[in-house]
Amino acid sequence: MYELGTKKSTIRTIFEYGRQRAAEVGEENIFDFSLGNPNVPTPEFVRDAAIDILRNCPPEQVHGYTVAPGNPKVREALAESLNKRFGVHFSGKNIFVTSGAAAAITICFKALAEPGDEFITFAPYFPEYKVFVESVGAALKVVPPSPNDWQIDFDAFQKMLNANTKAVIINSPNNPSGAVYSKETITKLTAMLKHQFNQYGRRIFLISDEPYRELAYGVEVPWVTDYWWNTLVCYSYSKSFSLPGERIGYIVVPNGVDDFDKIFGAIAGAARVLTHVNAPSLWQLVVARCAGKSVDITPYERNGKLLYDGLIAAGFECVKPQGAFYLFPKALEADDYAFCERAKKYDLLLVPGADFGAPGYFRAAYCIKTETIERSLPLFKKLADEYRG
Amino acid sequence: MYELGTKKSTIRTIFEYGRQRAAEVGEENIFDFSLGNPNVPTPEFVRDAAIDILRNCPPEQVHGYTVAPGNPKVREALAESLNKRFGVHFSGKNIFVTSGAAAAITICFKALAEPGDEFITFAPYFPEYKVFVESVGAALKVVPPSPNDWQIDFDAFQKMLNANTKAVIINSPNNPSGAVYSKETITKLTAMLKHQFNQYGRRIFLISDEPYRELAYGVEVPWVTDYWWNTLVCYSYSKSFSLPGERIGYIVVPNGVDDFDKIFGAIAGAARVLTHVNAPSLWQLVVARCAGKSVDITPYERNGKLLYDGLIAAGFECVKPQGAFYLFPKALEADDYAFCERAKKYDLLLVPGADFGAPGYFRAAYCIKTETIERSLPLFKKLADEYRG
Repeated sequence: MYELGTKKSTIRTIFEYGRQRAAEVGEENIFDFSLGNPNVPTPEFVRDAAIDILRNCPPEQVHGYTVAPGNPKVREALAESLNKRFGVHFSGKNIFVTSGAAAAITICFKALAEPGDEFITFAPYFPEYKVFVESVGAALKVVPPSPNDWQIDFDAFQKMLNANTKAVIINSPNNPSGAVYSKETITKLTAMLKHQFNQYGRRIFLISDEPYRELAYGVEVPWVTDYWWNTLVCYSYSKSFSLPGERIGYIVVPNGVDDFDKIFGAIAGAARVLTHVNAPSLWQLVVARCAGKSVDITPYERNGKLLYDGLIAAGFECVKPQGAFYLFPKALEADDYAFCERAKKYDLLLVPGADFGAPGYFRAAYCIKTETIERSLPLFKKLADEYRG
Repeated sequence: MYELGTKKSTIRTIFEYGRQRAAEVGEENIFDFSLGNPNVPTPEFVRDAAIDILRNCPPEQVHGYTVAPGNPKVREALAESLNKRFGVHFSGKNIFVTSGAAAAITICFKALAEPGDEFITFAPYFPEYKVFVESVGAALKVVPPSPNDWQIDFDAFQKMLNANTKAVIINSPNNPSGAVYSKETITKLTAMLKHQFNQYGRRIFLISDEPYRELAYGVEVPWVTDYWWNTLVCYSYSKSFSLPGERIGYIVVPNGVDDFDKIFGAIAGAARVLTHVNAPSLWQLVVARCAGKSVDITPYERNGKLLYDGLIAAGFECVKPQGAFYLFPKALEADDYAFCERAKKYDLLLVPGADFGAPGYFRAAYCIKTETIERSLPLFKKLADEYRG
């Protein structure tokens, strides 16, 4: 526990270095691409809903305990919103409201994990997956990256599937690659799960971690329960409503999941031992009222395009981003740590791809001021020129 | 996990029975003493603080991620409030802000637990302790109750202490007994910990679970870090501010704790794997602004006195409540389950003491309408008369 609590993540270390440099040379001279903290303000309709609820609803209905899976009306409203947007047929009983996506995915891991189980994910991936999967006594297997388009290396995936595979974790739109898994990718992935199931007779779950679902730029994000019956969808309002500190999200457990009652019960049990009690009750009411309202993602889209075009012009190789708020370009030397260190000379703060299981790349979070990106571009150019000699 | 998620607690079962009966015979004819849900409304100053923060603070400062132990200014404010009230000398670095007390205690359990460890608590006790302690791989040992005053049976406690004892959990004011541990009790308890430490050389932690600290009626609740250096205090605003659904509380880690850095680091690690991320950020700001403001506990005190006097008049035996919002009288037959079943005939919904490790007693939560208590008293009288034949 001590190591888990004190070993600073690379991202955190870079961010803290940035704060220190900012104190030395001024905030405006630091180009901090390290953190995935939404910079688009929380929509006013979210704030107004919160204030209205606080003003006009009886406090015991706002702040009282809810049952563990969430306020029944909230669950109905969230299901209804999904039905409208994705043509699905959920009801409140398919929703378990959680304290954000970190809780949602870990509750799923803990609900499913049995000794010897393996969970598979695809590089590049959110590094907390490893911490969370191992904390429930299972092993995380990581499929190597597919850097041409950051979709899936299916041959490598095939080799990792075995009788111990309990679940496959996908994250699309992806942190850190910015890729959105296409229909073809999801179709092929689930066909392989089907084949695997037929071979071993052991059901496999797909855990779709979707905090960036609304942050997609002109591409469709397939609704995964349409493709695979044993899918658990994990969602968070951290990014879409810019509410990362409030910890509010949910798990979708479709009726079609094998042994629905058992799985939903196991989710409730896992939530219990993870001290869930209930997701924050005011925010349950707020997101129920605001669910499905569209949010303005153009600031992220604009930033992404600006940074992408600038990096390509400077000579970087990078897959065009389709979603989330990250670029994941190729580093200019094989050692991405060395590359990120060298970038610091220009006060460009970047995160090595090795941290996400994809060495040789780096992550640049563009959820920052557009002006900062504009002023960073000549520095990326200088950095690239330096590498070219 | 399935069993943990689906086996309904006795309290929950009784509560649900009550909802069903209320639908049949009318809300006003049900006397539901089953749930510990605060019925005093959230103080207006709490609501006003929340609205003011939502209106006037930049949303990214309200809703952004905070660092895991909490917003540094919030931690300072909470420490300052403790210093003023208890004459202690904490700073922000002694505070780890959590999602309520369930998270706080379980984070402490997980931070401390090693294979083979035993945690000791005292009956009657909050039944989730067992779930939480076992979930971190340790064993919970329960010292039998001391029904004369619901303080501590020290002889029984002495027999349970051994080289595997990692921590002792106390909960004062107590759920369900309503007792407040006196200075004498805490002094004797910590003297025994000292003796134990001298004998085995293994440090022992005291985990003081204090969600009811402010709900004490004319008695002092000793500040436990004054008595034992290895004390972790777990607090929640669920009861004092009637915010149980919002999940906001904290852990106090005093400087004097052996290996402070290790313990604080382990707490951060335990929080991480319990998917804490950070405590809800709006509520962090709200409780920092409101910490230490006094709350009106007279409705609970009035209810407690009314119910106590009524039960004594009806012939029940009961230790006078000193805090929290529960009475824990002796059942009128040895089998407390049978007694509570019989009470249902009068639509008196009570919780068997066996659920709290104290068979032969029952819990009556008096955080309900005063008028309901008034109207229940003749029914308690009838029930008692029935037992007297």
